[in-house]
Amino acid sequence: MNIRLYNARILTMEEGREIFEGEIWVQKDKILYVGNGKNREGLPDKHLIWDREIDCKGNLLMPGFKDAHTHSGMTLLRSYADDLPLNEWLNNKIFPVEAKMTAEDIYVLSKLAVLEYLTSGITAVFDMYLTPETIADAFDDMGMRCVQVGAVNNFSQSLELVEEMYQKLNKRSPLQSYILGFHAEYTCSRGLLEGLAGLAHKYKAPVFTHLSETEGEVAGCKARYGMTPVAFLNSLGMFDYGGGGYHCVHMTEEDISIMKEKRLYAVTNPGSNTKLASGIAPVTDFQKAGVLVAIGTDGPASNNCLDMFREMFLVTGLAKLREKDAGAVDAMEVLKMATVNGSGAMGLKDGDVLMAGKLADMIMIDLQQPNMQPLNNIPKNLVYSGSKQNVIMTMVGGNILYEKGEFYTKDRPEDIYEKAGNIMDRIRRSL
Amino acid sequence: MNIRLYNARILTMEEGREIFEGEIWVQKDKILYVGNGKNREGLPDKHLIWDREIDCKGNLLMPGFKDAHTHSGMTLLRSYADDLPLNEWLNNKIFPVEAKMTAEDIYVLSKLAVLEYLTSGITAVFDMYLTPETIADAFDDMGMRCVQVGAVNNFSQSLELVEEMYQKLNKRSPLQSYILGFHAEYTCSRGLLEGLAGLAHKYKAPVFTHLSETEGEVAGCKARYGMTPVAFLNSLGMFDYGGGGYHCVHMTEEDISIMKEKRLYAVTNPGSNTKLASGIAPVTDFQKAGVLVAIGTDGPASNNCLDMFREMFLVTGLAKLREKDAGAVDAMEVLKMATVNGSGAMGLKDGDVLMAGKLADMIMIDLQQPNMQPLNNIPKNLVYSGSKQNVIMTMVGGNILYEKGEFYTKDRPEDIYEKAGNIMDRIRRSL
Repeated sequence: MNIRLYNARILTMEEGREIFEGEIWVQKDKILYVGNGKNREGLPDKHLIWDREIDCKGNLLMPGFKDAHTHSGMTLLRSYADDLPLNEWLNNKIFPVEAKMTAEDIYVLSKLAVLEYLTSGITAVFDMYLTPETIADAFDDMGMRCVQVGAVNNFSQSLELVEEMYQKLNKRSPLQSYILGFHAEYTCSRGLLEGLAGLAHKYKAPVFTHLSETEGEVAGCKARYGMTPVAFLNSLGMFDYGGGGYHCVHMTEEDISIMKEKRLYAVTNPGSNTKLASGIAPVTDFQKAGVLVAIGTDGPASNNCLDMFREMFLVTGLAKLREKDAGAVDAMEVLKMATVNGSGAMGLKDGDVLMAGKLADMIMIDLQQPNMQPLNNIPKNLVYSGSKQNVIMTMVGGNILYEKGEFYTKDRPEDIYEKAGNIMDRIRRSL
Repeated sequence: MNIRLYNARILTMEEGREIFEGEIWVQKDKILYVGNGKNREGLPDKHLIWDREIDCKGNLLMPGFKDAHTHSGMTLLRSYADDLPLNEWLNNKIFPVEAKMTAEDIYVLSKLAVLEYLTSGITAVFDMYLTPETIADAFDDMGMRCVQVGAVNNFSQSLELVEEMYQKLNKRSPLQSYILGFHAEYTCSRGLLEGLAGLAHKYKAPVFTHLSETEGEVAGCKARYGMTPVAFLNSLGMFDYGGGGYHCVHMTEEDISIMKEKRLYAVTNPGSNTKLASGIAPVTDFQKAGVLVAIGTDGPASNNCLDMFREMFLVTGLAKLREKDAGAVDAMEVLKMATVNGSGAMGLKDGDVLMAGKLADMIMIDLQQPNMQPLNNIPKNLVYSGSKQNVIMTMVGGNILYEKGEFYTKDRPEDIYEKAGNIMDRIRRSL
């Protein structure tokens, strides 16, 4: 499809570039042109035939959000167990249901998650869950971009599977990729972790994992190895080719300086950390140290929704509370975390900004809604008053998958809802 | 209008009543019947002629949200000044613009706020702002319910105006009412406060005010009077007929026991307290003491949006963080705060629950959206994954003012946006 989007306000997210009025041309899965419609330098001579021309009516085009940590298959467990202490929640509620989930279930449940991502303007996710191949099937079938990360631990997956998926999913389709990773220090033996560090070295590749989410996790690692999780994993050479951590709530100064030195991303998940009472991540400390922060929703069992607007408000809001400083973490910084830094963490080098040659992964934000008026400052509106309700188009790889409340995915949402409901019924009966 | 809403799930918010499948009949501005459509006991014999019958398709009907603290006219200042320390924000940014606002401006800006309330399922607001009569005009013209509260302080309004508005606005129209109030202890002289306490006694009426929002406010009051704001105001007899406080962030044990004794409502404003780094209100302490909590958005200059879904998540989320307890403030309690307790605080005795004889102020929640699936637990879905996007109908006083993204108010939204934009342009030029 060749699509021309005109009469738009455009926030490219390029460093220092203000919002301007113009148009964007999409050719297949790439952006061909971003500009004011007059300066068309560098364009092919041939006249393009548009499959569709969209009048944006002054609404905003910007890069899609990158959900830099999620567990899509956990949609099943949304509102299944809430308002419970973490251990009771995990051991008595979450694990018994997960034990009953099949690969086919995860295929369906990942599709349900994709629908929700689209409503929130998320165009790519960094997904960690149980069955990589059926997850890739789900995302490919929905036309959605997904970077999977290894989830190996002592109880599921294996080093061999991680290596196999690393080779296989990185060659599979333009929408799929795979990054080395493991569940967490506290669920992996030392031997397994050493094996992963070995893979990082073998492929000169970054590694991601759940990192210092709770006080208990940090205390446990110290008791086992005399070091914080960051320091211990680093001592194994885990991060010699970069990577990063999800959550990163309970961090020492040394942890932060290791993250800076190894160029690790801190992926913050404020909705989940709030709901599970895990604490507030030191986002301003990361910023001061020059550690790049990306944003993830975490899975719907703990959050319970996949809504980047909620997360964006919480990133800055919780930083303001933590630092007792209403000036902490400016709105534009939050938008950068949700787009450019997310792309960086996920290895999507062409997913960061809107410019010629980049991925046609973008969203349209309805500015003609009362929560955006008056248009005093659009970036601040997005972070402080924006909502999923403002997302009126989500385009992934040049395909419009969601527009004005309608899904244009292959599957009908009602069918996915029904299948997800049936899975829950089946599992409830079997518990 | 007589409206029948059938094929619905219904959450009446009556104590202990579970969600059930049934229908609701509306006659003019009241609810005539709530039930399963079979047990029609107590209904008038005559056959009703329906102006409209709405198939709810299994979606949820529930009482509209009560926004128990807001400043509607401040929509002008949304995203005008953010990421600034409180004092700089207020003195250098907010006050100079407010000084330029006319009553006619506030009329337009209140209408803009009403549009936003409707998108969030808010059917009544507790509004404190500068020009009570034009605010009442705006709400009446939009068909929206508004309980205004006195905003008098040393710099604007007067005791006489508060008394005049108390008499006038409580007789004006079924949609309008007025409660005694003042801006805050720190902006009122002792004489003015004594005058207000006198009015409370004269009318045997409750009084509301901004209360213990910041540490500085509490310290100032202690320096002036040797007491916290709650204790000082109580010592004047201010709360002898009830009332309550907005914010209530920095509270002592004694404050909380005074609030319990005087049956005061604590209206929490977590979005604003977060964005301005004021702190986290002790919601679980209020609950333990038996102090009723209601929820407000505060004005769009500080929040910056009028979104009860954000506030509901924050009420429980911040309590969980504050108490380090993922079990703090259960979702059903939050819904009660946002509906029943809001009505109580605002003196809307028929606005609390859905039952025959109550106000036809209700909303429909779209459950056929991915963030509500699977339907494991609808109340938890509302609080933890709900969004404005799920609000597909807002009815106030029997009139559907918002449905499936369209406004059915007298004014067109585009006209209101344009007028609001023009006001901002005019004021910017004059600064």
